[in-house]
Amino acid sequence: MRTPETPATLQTQSYVLALIPGWPIPRVARVLHRDNDRLAVEFCDSSAPSRMTVHASTVTYVPASLAERLLAPISQRPSSTRRPTSTGAEAWLGMRIPVLDAGWVCLLDYAGTDEGIADAARTSYGERASSGADNRRLIRYLRRHGHTGPFEMVGTKWHVRLPIFVARQWVRHRTASLNEQSGRYSVLTDDAYVPPAPTIASQVAVKQGRDAPLPPAVQSEAAALIARAATDAHQAYQRLLSLGVARETARLVLPVNTYTQWVWKIDLHNLFHFLRLRLASDAQAEIRAYAEAVAQIVRCAWPVAWEAFDDYVRGAVSLAAPEVGCLQRAPMRPEEAQQDALRQSADLMGPRERAEFLGKLARLGLLDAVNMEVP
Amino acid sequence: MRTPETPATLQTQSYVLALIPGWPIPRVARVLHRDNDRLAVEFCDSSAPSRMTVHASTVTYVPASLAERLLAPISQRPSSTRRPTSTGAEAWLGMRIPVLDAGWVCLLDYAGTDEGIADAARTSYGERASSGADNRRLIRYLRRHGHTGPFEMVGTKWHVRLPIFVARQWVRHRTASLNEQSGRYSVLTDDAYVPPAPTIASQVAVKQGRDAPLPPAVQSEAAALIARAATDAHQAYQRLLSLGVARETARLVLPVNTYTQWVWKIDLHNLFHFLRLRLASDAQAEIRAYAEAVAQIVRCAWPVAWEAFDDYVRGAVSLAAPEVGCLQRAPMRPEEAQQDALRQSADLMGPRERAEFLGKLARLGLLDAVNMEVP
Amino acid sequence: MRTPETPATLQTQSYVLALIPGWPIPRVARVLHRDNDRLAVEFCDSSAPSRMTVHASTVTYVPASLAERLLAPISQRPSSTRRPTSTGAEAWLGMRIPVLDAGWVCLLDYAGTDEGIADAARTSYGERASSGADNRRLIRYLRRHGHTGPFEMVGTKWHVRLPIFVARQWVRHRTASLNEQSGRYSVLTDDAYVPPAPTIASQVAVKQGRDAPLPPAVQSEAAALIARAATDAHQAYQRLLSLGVARETARLVLPVNTYTQWVWKIDLHNLFHFLRLRLASDAQAEIRAYAEAVAQIVRCAWPVAWEAFDDYVRGAVSLAAPEVGCLQRAPMRPEEAQQDALRQSADLMGPRERAEFLGKLARLGLLDAVNMEVP
Amino acid sequence: MRTPETPATLQTQSYVLALIPGWPIPRVARVLHRDNDRLAVEFCDSSAPSRMTVHASTVTYVPASLAERLLAPISQRPSSTRRPTSTGAEAWLGMRIPVLDAGWVCLLDYAGTDEGIADAARTSYGERASSGADNRRLIRYLRRHGHTGPFEMVGTKWHVRLPIFVARQWVRHRTASLNEQSGRYSVLTDDAYVPPAPTIASQVAVKQGRDAPLPPAVQSEAAALIARAATDAHQAYQRLLSLGVARETARLVLPVNTYTQWVWKIDLHNLFHFLRLRLASDAQAEIRAYAEAVAQIVRCAWPVAWEAFDDYVRGAVSLAAPEVGCLQRAPMRPEEAQQDALRQSADLMGPRERAEFLGKLARLGLLDAVNMEVP
Repeated sequence: MRTPETPATLQTQSYVLALIPGWPIPRVARVLHRDNDRLAVEFCDSSAPSRMTVHASTVTYVPASLAERLLAPISQRPSSTRRPTSTGAEAWLGMRIPVLDAGWVCLLDYAGTDEGIADAARTSYGERASSGADNRRLIRYLRRHGHTGPFEMVGTKWHVRLPIFVARQWVRHRTASLNEQSGRYSVLTDDAYVPPAPTIASQVAVKQGRDAPLPPAVQSEAAALIARAATDAHQAYQRLLSLGVARETARLVLPVNTYTQWVWKIDLHNLFHFLRLRLASDAQAEIRAYAEAVAQIVRCAWPVAWEAFDDYVRGAVSLAAPEVGCLQRAPMRPEEAQQDALRQSADLMGPRERAEFLGKLARLGLLDAVNMEVP
Repeated sequence: MRTPETPATLQTQSYVLALIPGWPIPRVARVLHRDNDRLAVEFCDSSAPSRMTVHASTVTYVPASLAERLLAPISQRPSSTRRPTSTGAEAWLGMRIPVLDAGWVCLLDYAGTDEGIADAARTSYGERASSGADNRRLIRYLRRHGHTGPFEMVGTKWHVRLPIFVARQWVRHRTASLNEQSGRYSVLTDDAYVPPAPTIASQVAVKQGRDAPLPPAVQSEAAALIARAATDAHQAYQRLLSLGVARETARLVLPVNTYTQWVWKIDLHNLFHFLRLRLASDAQAEIRAYAEAVAQIVRCAWPVAWEAFDDYVRGAVSLAAPEVGCLQRAPMRPEEAQQDALRQSADLMGPRERAEFLGKLARLGLLDAVNMEVP
Repeated sequence: MRTPETPATLQTQSYVLALIPGWPIPRVARVLHRDNDRLAVEFCDSSAPSRMTVHASTVTYVPASLAERLLAPISQRPSSTRRPTSTGAEAWLGMRIPVLDAGWVCLLDYAGTDEGIADAARTSYGERASSGADNRRLIRYLRRHGHTGPFEMVGTKWHVRLPIFVARQWVRHRTASLNEQSGRYSVLTDDAYVPPAPTIASQVAVKQGRDAPLPPAVQSEAAALIARAATDAHQAYQRLLSLGVARETARLVLPVNTYTQWVWKIDLHNLFHFLRLRLASDAQAEIRAYAEAVAQIVRCAWPVAWEAFDDYVRGAVSLAAPEVGCLQRAPMRPEEAQQDALRQSADLMGPRERAEFLGKLARLGLLDAVNMEVP
Repeated sequence: MRTPETPATLQTQSYVLALIPGWPIPRVARVLHRDNDRLAVEFCDSSAPSRMTVHASTVTYVPASLAERLLAPISQRPSSTRRPTSTGAEAWLGMRIPVLDAGWVCLLDYAGTDEGIADAARTSYGERASSGADNRRLIRYLRRHGHTGPFEMVGTKWHVRLPIFVARQWVRHRTASLNEQSGRYSVLTDDAYVPPAPTIASQVAVKQGRDAPLPPAVQSEAAALIARAATDAHQAYQRLLSLGVARETARLVLPVNTYTQWVWKIDLHNLFHFLRLRLASDAQAEIRAYAEAVAQIVRCAWPVAWEAFDDYVRGAVSLAAPEVGCLQRAPMRPEEAQQDALRQSADLMGPRERAEFLGKLARLGLLDAVNMEVP
């Protein structure tokens, strides 16, 4: 639906997505002038360093229409509040992170901080609030033991633009609130997602999803077919509207890669559940791209909760009962290997967490009961 | 996508949808022989009278492919159970009610009866179970007073085939469980919903929805455009699959009127909420057609709960505070009108319900406080 | 459990609850000096006028222990945020509103404003944001038509101290998050709710709840019995703890009027549902007291949403189908009464709302179809 | 509250709980005659072998009042249904399993079977139903990969009698429907849970829960204190009722070990979540007793789903990212140990499951990448 410019053709006034060092997500910039492969760019949103020089190969062209969409931030003058505030969340508020060819993710509002998670837990335990180190220890303990209630105490609200087929996967997460653009009330734009040709892959036997890459010529033909189908469908839509047909009927012809948008509100516990499933390698690549943009912001806004999620949920290996049985029946590890592992664990973990780990090792048959007392 | 036969062209062996007297939903039948406008038909499903003679103008032709889909009932031999059983629900189990041009609704399973609703309520009240009349009185009381908990005690499970755009409205009801056919795993059929030309209407200013009918020529052109768009899209889909493109990518070109199917489980309280919104006149006609098929079965399976819903929710008129204020400031009704209304209400309602009604009338200024004691 | 001081015995340094003009909820103050019936008091929380002179009969004594609990606000220094801010909500943040004899309600955090409700709805309608008057019209339209989704977009978080039997009614509202103090981890205080003697009433036949007042001597005996039972139970609890019995077992003897506390998070849609049921006249008086404290804050924090709720939900009169039938069969109102009502409605309502009202009147048989066009 | 008979004092006509071989839950029986330590008993419920001879030491005395409660089954004559039927579930329908000293759990109704779980999943995958072996493989795959949707398709409904403090833990599971006996409407019985003296333990430092046993004399004193407190409280309750105080107020004095009852409806996915948390060793012993009774029935009614839950959830060992890191840095296992484990896993698992296991082992550093191909 749009012909991408290449690094070679980027001109003054073109919009690009460029990376600021130390800032993980690309932001919209305008090319001020060009000196061979060096581009002087100016960032177009309001909340960070304004100018930079970059190499042409490091930026991505975006058409003006998309750039303008990405640049319509929710304008929010700072105001004073007595609510708990997350500086990481504030930095991202109202910024539209580009996802796919015409979509974005934007944090609209939030309530609660890492400290608030710990405080909610302390309500149960009747403990007193104390230092940041205590908060971290408590939050990691909660996560490790599946006490997910306190994570529900953080609220998040997002504005997302996404293709309909991604939206259909997204709504499977029911414990959330949603207000979506309606094709009954409003006329939909002609934006439709077309996957970049090099990413188009073949069906894999047995499993869902895509895997083996296709020959470049086939990839190009497929991308062209998808783009053409979207154009044809949108022409039919426009023709139906011009005949006077009601919007709710005219839209029947639109394909599932048409973009829609919505406001989505979800608590942090359920957001982590969404991230666990949608960041996984078997999630469809397109929804994974959205999950990664959301994760980027969560990592900044609730860093302690994110780290605990990353260590104890995303990075965990779960051994099922039959697997445990196999391991247990295998011969013991040699003495020195055990000592080694024990010594390392003493460096890496607090005392309670390590006791749990030793328990798991013993249960796995990787450790002599005798050695439980060592070092 | 298919050219309907007319009553004039119906032949032996054609499939039709025909009505059995006293059975509100059409069922699939096959034409045995024809004598001018008289058709001898045989019903193809297993659970009712088998042959009938009907007038050709009263049946609807269905193509063999759809008829076969409607006739693949979940074969369930009767078995013995000690669970509460609803004869109305049993009659509909496994029957696919046709909806739109290639969809259906089918009751797959259920748990609970009208009596179960009353019994759950009695758990709260500490009352003893008694007669059917008591059940009816209690269920109506629960409904009238918004005690919706006991209605959650009935479970229902459905198999539904429906266009994607209807599915997208349907999933807004989040308090339900869902397993939908996946376009990542399976190849989708070429069925796409095309609205019958005479139903295609124009957009109405301000409001959502469709209203004024369009000229027949425009309607035909619109229907043809929608049918053509679906055919084109499905050809692109087939071409992508033949190139070896993964199903999850190939499906991007399919329009939102493509049919999908799912298993849907919801409790009766939330099902009534679905019905209230989706039977309403401002619901899109297509989802309303599904809601009507569901309602048909609910009416048979839980007749007392349905009647209470119909009287106290669907048929209710709610006057907002400002409206009540207006009425109260208007002059009194003449004496004889009041007496009339009071007399009628004594015939129609039980004593507690009537006391509530008199209270509303008094609050509405339609009744003298003095007259509260009468008849 | 505590002997209240009377206005006559209030001394310097006593704590009282006093009302500031224009501030609907009493706040904790300390008596500075006394001049007959005139008390000079100083408010002890930080967020409002500090000194005032009041009449002794207008204040309520509170024991120091409760005053201190009410005065342990969540100290939150103002910080800068780009989030939407509600000034009404900010005013109440961290203030503990006293409820019953030793409980309180406190707004801990929130996300979203009246404007945010309207903006979420506009996502669906594809409209543009505009003036405050438009927001009010839109929010009232949403409420009137049961479009409750946008109200879910506002989040609220509360800290509440309440008796266990109230907590048991409260948790019936399941669409909320909760972290409650645990009697397994912590030792519970000896606070137990004792109803003020003059409020103790007798059981009413048929209905739930209390109604007719009891003789004062009986009321006093009942209050004393309840207080005594709580003291005895708490002594048994202390004795069990001193024997070394685990807290989770020792607490078995504690009565259901023992105070607990929790953090409660709920969206505004579900909060209104809570308020509708718990502000109703058939709710138990004790939970109604909590609902009133919550409502007080909601009214300030989301005034437009509250007003719409008050007009269209709390103040509404719903006529069920049988009632409507009765009214319809009654003779017409005289011409002049109709004209009157129509004229008034033109003053009070916008054009769309009035059209709906006339429709209801016609449906109720209170209005000639002929007269629909008038004034 | 009641003095238990000992095996020595059991007489003809006493009620006992006795075990039938092969039937895991005790059932109510009446002693027909006694011959030293041999008791001839007759079972009092209707659904199994009726007479048996047992050794006196293997039965537990129950007072007549409790036995009668356990024997008031929901009388359900078998009827014919076309719904899927689980023979395991049918066997337990309406049987009250005794829990604690005066509580019980009873399966009231259900919808869905193991086959239905597999069928719901096949809706997504577009596969055809086939053999029971395929169902088992599919259900285990779903569980292993966290595809929990199909488990929501089974509904269960229970009648439970339980102490209030257990009920308060139970309602933390919000995705369920509940109708509880109301203390506003009904007069509560004087049943209160008193833990058997030998189970009363001391508080454990740091952790929740109880641990070390107390001296028998202390245990007896504690049990007597709890029993006495319940008696005193119930006398105060009766006195308040006799004064005419409303039930909702009189109940304030009742302790949290008073028995209540409710009807509880929950789907199988959420029921497994309940069981995972409430069967765990850190759950309070009393709610664990209820979870065990529920688990007993689930195991019979949905045996394949239960087995998958037991293997992949209850019996699983999850290694967090830091633990995985430690293991990975430890030296390799000797060659022969690896071969051993591989050979065993080939016997125990299907090919896909085993490939996952080898992947986990490699990730854990317990297996050479080289050896992945073996045997």
